[in-house]
Amino acid sequence: MLDIAIRNAEIVTAGDRIHAEIGIRQGRIVAIAENVGLARQDIDAKGLLVLPGGIDAHVHLEQPQGGGVVMADGFESGTRSAAAGGNTTVMPFALQQKGQSLREAVDAYHAAAKDKCYVDTSFHLIITDPTPQVLGQELPAMVKAGYTSFKVFMTYDDMVLNDRELLDVFDVARREKAMVMVHAEGYDAIKYMARRLEEAGKTAPYYHAESRPQSVEREATHRAISHAELTDVPITIVHVSGRDPMEQIQWAKKRGMNVYAETCPQYIALTADDLKGLNMDFEGAKYVCSPPPRDLDSQKAIWEGLRDGTFDIFSSDHCPFRFEDEKGKDVPGARTNFKWVPNGIPGVETRLPILFSEGVSKRLISIERFVELTATNPAKLFGLYPRKGTIAVGADADFTFWDPEREVTISQSLMHHDCDYTPYEGLAVKGWPVRTILRGETIAQEGDVLGAPTDGEYLERGTSRAFGN
Amino acid sequence: MLDIAIRNAEIVTAGDRIHAEIGIRQGRIVAIAENVGLARQDIDAKGLLVLPGGIDAHVHLEQPQGGGVVMADGFESGTRSAAAGGNTTVMPFALQQKGQSLREAVDAYHAAAKDKCYVDTSFHLIITDPTPQVLGQELPAMVKAGYTSFKVFMTYDDMVLNDRELLDVFDVARREKAMVMVHAEGYDAIKYMARRLEEAGKTAPYYHAESRPQSVEREATHRAISHAELTDVPITIVHVSGRDPMEQIQWAKKRGMNVYAETCPQYIALTADDLKGLNMDFEGAKYVCSPPPRDLDSQKAIWEGLRDGTFDIFSSDHCPFRFEDEKGKDVPGARTNFKWVPNGIPGVETRLPILFSEGVSKRLISIERFVELTATNPAKLFGLYPRKGTIAVGADADFTFWDPEREVTISQSLMHHDCDYTPYEGLAVKGWPVRTILRGETIAQEGDVLGAPTDGEYLERGTSRAFGN
Amino acid sequence: MLDIAIRNAEIVTAGDRIHAEIGIRQGRIVAIAENVGLARQDIDAKGLLVLPGGIDAHVHLEQPQGGGVVMADGFESGTRSAAAGGNTTVMPFALQQKGQSLREAVDAYHAAAKDKCYVDTSFHLIITDPTPQVLGQELPAMVKAGYTSFKVFMTYDDMVLNDRELLDVFDVARREKAMVMVHAEGYDAIKYMARRLEEAGKTAPYYHAESRPQSVEREATHRAISHAELTDVPITIVHVSGRDPMEQIQWAKKRGMNVYAETCPQYIALTADDLKGLNMDFEGAKYVCSPPPRDLDSQKAIWEGLRDGTFDIFSSDHCPFRFEDEKGKDVPGARTNFKWVPNGIPGVETRLPILFSEGVSKRLISIERFVELTATNPAKLFGLYPRKGTIAVGADADFTFWDPEREVTISQSLMHHDCDYTPYEGLAVKGWPVRTILRGETIAQEGDVLGAPTDGEYLERGTSRAFGN
Amino acid sequence: MLDIAIRNAEIVTAGDRIHAEIGIRQGRIVAIAENVGLARQDIDAKGLLVLPGGIDAHVHLEQPQGGGVVMADGFESGTRSAAAGGNTTVMPFALQQKGQSLREAVDAYHAAAKDKCYVDTSFHLIITDPTPQVLGQELPAMVKAGYTSFKVFMTYDDMVLNDRELLDVFDVARREKAMVMVHAEGYDAIKYMARRLEEAGKTAPYYHAESRPQSVEREATHRAISHAELTDVPITIVHVSGRDPMEQIQWAKKRGMNVYAETCPQYIALTADDLKGLNMDFEGAKYVCSPPPRDLDSQKAIWEGLRDGTFDIFSSDHCPFRFEDEKGKDVPGARTNFKWVPNGIPGVETRLPILFSEGVSKRLISIERFVELTATNPAKLFGLYPRKGTIAVGADADFTFWDPEREVTISQSLMHHDCDYTPYEGLAVKGWPVRTILRGETIAQEGDVLGAPTDGEYLERGTSRAFGN
Repeated sequence: MLDIAIRNAEIVTAGDRIHAEIGIRQGRIVAIAENVGLARQDIDAKGLLVLPGGIDAHVHLEQPQGGGVVMADGFESGTRSAAAGGNTTVMPFALQQKGQSLREAVDAYHAAAKDKCYVDTSFHLIITDPTPQVLGQELPAMVKAGYTSFKVFMTYDDMVLNDRELLDVFDVARREKAMVMVHAEGYDAIKYMARRLEEAGKTAPYYHAESRPQSVEREATHRAISHAELTDVPITIVHVSGRDPMEQIQWAKKRGMNVYAETCPQYIALTADDLKGLNMDFEGAKYVCSPPPRDLDSQKAIWEGLRDGTFDIFSSDHCPFRFEDEKGKDVPGARTNFKWVPNGIPGVETRLPILFSEGVSKRLISIERFVELTATNPAKLFGLYPRKGTIAVGADADFTFWDPEREVTISQSLMHHDCDYTPYEGLAVKGWPVRTILRGETIAQEGDVLGAPTDGEYLERGTSRAFGN
Repeated sequence: MLDIAIRNAEIVTAGDRIHAEIGIRQGRIVAIAENVGLARQDIDAKGLLVLPGGIDAHVHLEQPQGGGVVMADGFESGTRSAAAGGNTTVMPFALQQKGQSLREAVDAYHAAAKDKCYVDTSFHLIITDPTPQVLGQELPAMVKAGYTSFKVFMTYDDMVLNDRELLDVFDVARREKAMVMVHAEGYDAIKYMARRLEEAGKTAPYYHAESRPQSVEREATHRAISHAELTDVPITIVHVSGRDPMEQIQWAKKRGMNVYAETCPQYIALTADDLKGLNMDFEGAKYVCSPPPRDLDSQKAIWEGLRDGTFDIFSSDHCPFRFEDEKGKDVPGARTNFKWVPNGIPGVETRLPILFSEGVSKRLISIERFVELTATNPAKLFGLYPRKGTIAVGADADFTFWDPEREVTISQSLMHHDCDYTPYEGLAVKGWPVRTILRGETIAQEGDVLGAPTDGEYLERGTSRAFGN
Repeated sequence: MLDIAIRNAEIVTAGDRIHAEIGIRQGRIVAIAENVGLARQDIDAKGLLVLPGGIDAHVHLEQPQGGGVVMADGFESGTRSAAAGGNTTVMPFALQQKGQSLREAVDAYHAAAKDKCYVDTSFHLIITDPTPQVLGQELPAMVKAGYTSFKVFMTYDDMVLNDRELLDVFDVARREKAMVMVHAEGYDAIKYMARRLEEAGKTAPYYHAESRPQSVEREATHRAISHAELTDVPITIVHVSGRDPMEQIQWAKKRGMNVYAETCPQYIALTADDLKGLNMDFEGAKYVCSPPPRDLDSQKAIWEGLRDGTFDIFSSDHCPFRFEDEKGKDVPGARTNFKWVPNGIPGVETRLPILFSEGVSKRLISIERFVELTATNPAKLFGLYPRKGTIAVGADADFTFWDPEREVTISQSLMHHDCDYTPYEGLAVKGWPVRTILRGETIAQEGDVLGAPTDGEYLERGTSRAFGN
Repeated sequence: MLDIAIRNAEIVTAGDRIHAEIGIRQGRIVAIAENVGLARQDIDAKGLLVLPGGIDAHVHLEQPQGGGVVMADGFESGTRSAAAGGNTTVMPFALQQKGQSLREAVDAYHAAAKDKCYVDTSFHLIITDPTPQVLGQELPAMVKAGYTSFKVFMTYDDMVLNDRELLDVFDVARREKAMVMVHAEGYDAIKYMARRLEEAGKTAPYYHAESRPQSVEREATHRAISHAELTDVPITIVHVSGRDPMEQIQWAKKRGMNVYAETCPQYIALTADDLKGLNMDFEGAKYVCSPPPRDLDSQKAIWEGLRDGTFDIFSSDHCPFRFEDEKGKDVPGARTNFKWVPNGIPGVETRLPILFSEGVSKRLISIERFVELTATNPAKLFGLYPRKGTIAVGADADFTFWDPEREVTISQSLMHHDCDYTPYEGLAVKGWPVRTILRGETIAQEGDVLGAPTDGEYLERGTSRAFGN
């Protein structure tokens, strides 16, 4: 007998949309059928879409910060918020600090996560110190151990890699078949612009956006792509913000390069004007993230890219800092110069509704494409497929039950994170996740998180589909 | 109890690739599960890929020709060949002759098809005489009756529509939500080139290719797209042959237009040089089709388009004429001037192996993409989905069992059509359909057609997915 | 001794800008020097730019119209207006009416022009009836006689050529080395749109613009280019209005095709909104021309094209109809349906100031480029060079003295045409032609036309530079 | 009375081509006329084209090298070779060595040039050490002193600037209105490739080309353009080698950026295959330069760019090293690893004939365009116009008399440089400079250099036309 049967399901995957029942045993899907037979528990999905559980492949939780700043969310609140937002897997980053071994970084991060995860997790690495030891020994070992992706930064004082380091990391990635995620903004160009703005007395949060115009992101994107071409390795350009960097990615794809791309809710729901706050005031700090939101033309471009395959995945880049908090956005100095404002905004809980409402409800993308961008492709790109990312026999029984007609106004009062605001306050959306099921267990329903912080498992990963396997 | 269980299946759909069993009852899939339970018949798919049955959305069978020419294949041999080639559905064209009502045309075609189909069929219409009566009454009625797609020609003496007629047909298509398929080559330009070649004494079959260069197809493609933009209707450009027309389609898609595109085996496996025969002789007539095959650069371009989504479907444009036959390629006059050579080549049986071998086996496209191009998208684009085009609960139990390792050299001796040659003679392919199952019944296996010409059903169709439903 | 010496000249040509004196004898430039020596007449150009006399390669004068409509300007007023606007050569069109021989058409036009030209003229032909006689005999003879360019229309009831006719005309042009000018708008598409607008009760002048959207012009442009590619002949696309057709031209140029392009003042100084008049009223008829003015984005695109070489020449397309006149814009029916409003606006007198002011004064193009677009290239493209179009030894002594600092507000009261309005009323420009010199004789100065209608000569022309000579 | 009269001249400038006489007094053109009157000396140009003297804006002479390498040409042999090749002005580079002040660098270079120049010269600077002192004081002072252009390198151990340094130099250039020339190849990428090739034992001269593929040049080009966009300054990308970097420049120009571009003879007359020598041997070292020559597709692209305005100037990048010389190509180590082979090839003498023969004689570009690329635009871009770069009253009497029909096979025996080979040995050209006239004096004629090394003057320069003046 089955453990669970989901009845009356309108199942949507990246390729299909069908009516059927789903049979679950020991947390896995064992049957999809007109009638799966008896089960100890029946769940009725009548009137709802049954989607694969959301996979947010880009979240920052409890990541060490400099200057006395602390992230608003650790694993507990971050994964709680994720569960409430229809996600069953999140992928945060284990940051290598300078001088630290990758193993140390990962072990510390596992320790932080232990017994604090409402959803499944798997870690990307962040490489900040690519010593010969790291490149030659540690990184290959970590890939073999299932950490099959890592992120590199082309900016930020304490994380930036120079071109030679990028090339060396890419070289390891090719040999070990690991996926490199690239934060593409040019360090020197930002420094140059920041100084010019500072000299002109332009220090309000808004000028954060002016200090990193699209040309800065475009240049770094082109550079990363060129390095990938030279080293012959697939890469993923993360959090692409606008038309300029997009065009570089389109060009690369058209040449047949294995360049993948991610975009995020902030680039379809916010613009640089949001950083102006009420009157060029500190309220704008709520929207400071990197790359910054752009303009309406770029929003239009991003939608084209979500439709036409320029973008492969849609993640939140959840990176929360409390607004009214000296360890958050209001850290000493932030009110005098944008450069001290911590970069990042929360979003793991609102990612799916925003894309669904603006995309599916407004008929810009199909539901199948929504599933592909938010679950299937993240799983394929980062080695979690077919265990995760789809509704199919053999996969984990991870689902989001989606009410496509539910109208909700996003508000901080609805959120489950530990951040004290949401940048999408007041945004009316149509379509909402009403039940989240992780390996057969309902972990969130109608705004209540029902699971426990011990529910989440850590997922070792295989090789990215980008390597053709 | 199930009628049939397929065991040990490696199921591939447009979105997923999983191991499972498939349970079938009354010709439909009722379960996909780790274990579907008992069945009256077990089919073991061990070691094979189980794909949705191929849908060839573009075949010509028993279509009336002028000048004493007769097509090599009627419904019986055409669908027999299709079944042997891994297809479970083909879509031939009911041609309206000048002065004929659409109903007459369709009735006559149904009569021709009756009890002669090894696979399921559904008819597109060909509109050659868009009178006010046809546009205002007949066409809307036919769409409502399930003939939800029709083809128009921008060339050929007896079929060409002028721009105003095209616009009027497109206008009806928008109102009735029907899909228009466009044969895009410019009539006057071809006439002009044919005369110049004739005047220069260039009359061998090869000059068929020179008489319709890419610019002729590109111009018509651009024109059709512009008419679709003006009338605000989706269209499908069929049998796109090369880089020039492709670029027009890419441009249209990038602008967000609902332009769909089809390409065919002849554009990846043949070039215009094939029309030269042995020594500019009549042997070249075997490869005369329109648009003609192009060059290696265009083959490369076509592959890019098959990868990147420029192309939505891959069909055969099966249009067979016997070579050594005065009612075929060797019709009186053909040896003196290419313009009398009947346009068309056979291909319904070789479509799937050629795309698989050149695309999947050589790692240019994934197996999921292969399924999407050859079955799922044709079904979605022409209103057959979800009954056809995928492997999912509720769908017809149509399958192709595929041996990805089988190496075969294509040869006329292997073919099941009534044509007396294959243009792909001698082409070595890797990957072959070893069993075709139509609604649960094995209709072909290892080169033997096991079904009966009464097996095929006629499929009424719904509205194309292109209309956003 | 010289007849005339121009002292203190700041001479600008397409390539150079220098200070010198110009010596003139018998209407031709015989010397450019630091000191040209004594002359019977001295003209002091101090403080002014000395430019080649403007060549307006696209004007309509006294061209026969149907439906009781009469053009506002004949040769006398048209060339008077041209002279006042800094031009020394205009090129109107000798229209072949259906059934008429080319020779008849040309002779009649010469008769109309006789003793009525203040500036030099040369005629393009308009081919409306390309019979075998015309194509085989008349057209070749006319080209040999110095009528080395002709225009064809892809729209307008009484002038439209179909694709086969276009191809045949292009074919003659290649053989005879004549330049074809193409009015590129699609006839059937306009008819289709006009009917839809009419059915919707949208008949105000503004809907003229909606009846011929950019897609209609773009399609015809692409088609003309494709026909030129097929026939292997240079062509000039005239009065290009916006981004869409421009992109086709850019694409063709990038492929190395000999496609030339013209744009006009209305496409940088007007938009479709001008056709709305005050409140969607008949005032909008003042701006009805074809193609219609577009939008601000297209204005931006046009400027890019004027800078980057997409455009080769800048003409007025002067085609004047009186506004308060039943033989003009207010012809019976015009107030009930835009389709009866005569298409065309005046502009021969304002062409140069508008381009200079918006282009040179605002630093979008250099003065050299201004000269190239308005005089040198028209001369080269239409076989008048080096007699016309530059300031060089051996050329005709045609000059416009230009005051780059003069600020003028364009107004009907300043105009010398016989039209009763200017569409640029109220436009403030900086830079103005203060003296026009034709073969040494001052024919206009400070708003006064000083010449006589017998001053202008008819210019036989050689082969276009487009043929590589 | 005139000093000199050039009779029967067929004068070609960037804009015009006319027949006239040229009158010269004190080395300057004082008249162009049908008859300039009496002169102390008559020069008959009958049958020849009279072009402005060539300006080679990119030559390296006597530039300090590391590792015991010495350039083959100093000022004397370099300018002698230039004169023989039809040039009247060359622009070599005054290199700032690390720690050196710009004034020291320039003074030393003037000392080296003193009394050793057959043609006029003007120096660009090379900035290798942009200290605050250099950026804040020295560079502005040098620009004011007429050194209005400087070059920066994105590669080479002893010259490479990092991104911040590039941005700072660009910033000064904007403020001071100086033209920056950019050597665009990515340092780290080259190092990475060189190491990989070395590890694979690929050390023959040919691998020099593989170590700097187009992607390396394209990336640096994009980066330089992005920095120019950010700092809002015009730049010139020098020695563009192929399609990839070209596309970046086209993109920038299309966006309206003031990006200028130069290409060179090696990119239309050589390919990477030349670096293979006879059998991957050291003979290939004769063709080692950076960027390396590419392939036939890039040659085609370069021609498109020479036609369509992508390229503004055509220079030699003359950088000669003797082949059979331990201070030249055969420096110790060079035979064991390409990375020790000095980068550069001679070409100042063959620049004009190669472009003329391949471009003008083969009808890919017009003679006017030839003049524009080789004389007028270099003068305008680098502040020498109108004294140099054209044939006009007031300009220096610098001419190249060109025989467009002369057929010559390029050979070392014809060269006047001190290098011991020409990379164009055996290349047959049509069109040859038969007389070079510098400020009225014939300095070379029919292969004989008639001038003296004291003939050349140093030219102070004004602001580049790129700044809109």
